[in-house]
Amino acid sequence: MGDKYLFTNCIATFLFDSDFKIAEKVENDEVKDYSEWLESEKKLMHKHSKDKIFYIGFKKEKLQGAVMSQDPQKLSRILDFFKKNEFFKSFHEINLLETKMKVRAAVDSDLLVIQTINNIDELNKAANLLIKRLREWYELYNPEFSRSIESHEKFVELILANNKDELLKQIGLSKDKTMGADLPHDDVKSIMNLAKQIDNLYKLRESHTIYLETLMNKSYPNITAVAGSLIGAKIISLAGSLERLVKMPASTVQLLGAEKALFRHMRQKTKPPKHGVIIQHPLLNSAKQKDKGKVARVLADKISIATRVDYYKGQFVGDRLKKEIEERVKQLK
Amino acid sequence: MGDKYLFTNCIATFLFDSDFKIAEKVENDEVKDYSEWLESEKKLMHKHSKDKIFYIGFKKEKLQGAVMSQDPQKLSRILDFFKKNEFFKSFHEINLLETKMKVRAAVDSDLLVIQTINNIDELNKAANLLIKRLREWYELYNPEFSRSIESHEKFVELILANNKDELLKQIGLSKDKTMGADLPHDDVKSIMNLAKQIDNLYKLRESHTIYLETLMNKSYPNITAVAGSLIGAKIISLAGSLERLVKMPASTVQLLGAEKALFRHMRQKTKPPKHGVIIQHPLLNSAKQKDKGKVARVLADKISIATRVDYYKGQFVGDRLKKEIEERVKQLK
Repeated sequence: MGDKYLFTNCIATFLFDSDFKIAEKVENDEVKDYSEWLESEKKLMHKHSKDKIFYIGFKKEKLQGAVMSQDPQKLSRILDFFKKNEFFKSFHEINLLETKMKVRAAVDSDLLVIQTINNIDELNKAANLLIKRLREWYELYNPEFSRSIESHEKFVELILANNKDELLKQIGLSKDKTMGADLPHDDVKSIMNLAKQIDNLYKLRESHTIYLETLMNKSYPNITAVAGSLIGAKIISLAGSLERLVKMPASTVQLLGAEKALFRHMRQKTKPPKHGVIIQHPLLNSAKQKDKGKVARVLADKISIATRVDYYKGQFVGDRLKKEIEERVKQLK
Repeated sequence: MGDKYLFTNCIATFLFDSDFKIAEKVENDEVKDYSEWLESEKKLMHKHSKDKIFYIGFKKEKLQGAVMSQDPQKLSRILDFFKKNEFFKSFHEINLLETKMKVRAAVDSDLLVIQTINNIDELNKAANLLIKRLREWYELYNPEFSRSIESHEKFVELILANNKDELLKQIGLSKDKTMGADLPHDDVKSIMNLAKQIDNLYKLRESHTIYLETLMNKSYPNITAVAGSLIGAKIISLAGSLERLVKMPASTVQLLGAEKALFRHMRQKTKPPKHGVIIQHPLLNSAKQKDKGKVARVLADKISIATRVDYYKGQFVGDRLKKEIEERVKQLK
């Protein structure tokens, strides 16, 4: 009987009596969202329906039967109550847990895409570092064959699949006319082990590229249609997230990845850059030198539109945007 | 009958008659060494034993029954004979082949050691590049476990062998209190593929280190006993070859790998460096700061001696040299 006060914080939902002592509480053993808090509050309201219940706090949802109390004195008495040491540990733990859950929920496709594209870049770097060594090392053994093949991937594939005699035959060189030393089996094996690992790195890059494509198509279908999965991912990575990319003007998108050249232009009055990473796009890459600036602008415009459609989960318009770029490029010719 | 002239060059061994026309020749279809030339010459001498044969040229080996001719006119007539165009192609081809064979013969343990040690360094660099990415990527999924393990190799090994639940158990964390996101199988698989490749790179580095040890023990037993295979190989690599290392004073050996600090010292009067790559040697590494200079000098002295013993294929004294360093270090304490 008498006035009671309903108050909810992250520890529990409390019902205080008129002396501001806890009459009853429903604990939140897990971090819950507001709809679950509402359930606890309703439960307590129902149980104490004979009392007059004031709802203390800032909650906006209408709680059936509760009188909202705006009395600052009552609020302050309740808040004082929670200043006791015994609650500190609970507050600390629950807040920490809540933050952790927010961190956990923040892992989205942006982060996965950024990790994947950066990883592909780094696999490239690692493979390039090792392939240079492999070439130099292998050239003690079979220099003519190494020099006959420019593609690193093809080179690794062939030396793994064929022995020296077969490779020399392929380039029409007799065994006793090669500059390569006759290395013992163990020495050759060490070289081949390196080749095998480089081959594995190439294969991993391939599989990660396919994985990136899946990620991009799923979360950013419009960007992917217009820019391709690799360039699209690089742009998102350079912007930091899709949200930041959405807020950028198209002219910034056009120059993402050309920051060095841009700042050099601003400081030393060199020519301004016309494009950042989008230069790798086939339409821009194949454009004539004099048209590159125009094509870059069109491309960046459409990527910018695609980004907004993807961000606001709009319908798929990637095909149409791509066609518009192609038509614009055709007019330039 | 009459005077005949015997002359050998890289094309063949020729017997000229008194008009300086070819009477007979024995072709060298392969590049041969001088002992084989001698055989050809003996054969021709024997066949024409009725003639008086003059030996034209600069050869020093005594050729039984031949009269050495020092007559410059005769030599010049024979040399003129070979100025004909028809011989140019042969000379060119044979010289090219001979050079190739020299290149081939120049592949020795120095070159293999240098390639192997540089390769180990580069495997390190590549693995470090990729492990940083793996950590960052994996920490979206299971940050607490990644942070609990410092050793990269152990980390890769454990995440490959256990699933997330098992790993969380190991660090005593419940599944619903981790900050890591619940990633779908495909996303986790891409991360694990990277982990697998990094593990392979670590394993390759291991196997190349063992291979290097074998190479070093076989060709440079004394250097290896004193400096260890990794530091020994680095010193040879920095010097460029064993031959160049032999010619270096011990004080240079002491500073190999500290060139930057040395030149900074010379230009800007900073403190001179006390040691180069030999700092990684356990005896030097564990020495007190004030003793490091002395230990480095002793170590470099002994490595220098070991180098000379290995170069001149002397007896194994590595153990004795190592003991001498250890005793000198003991005296310092």
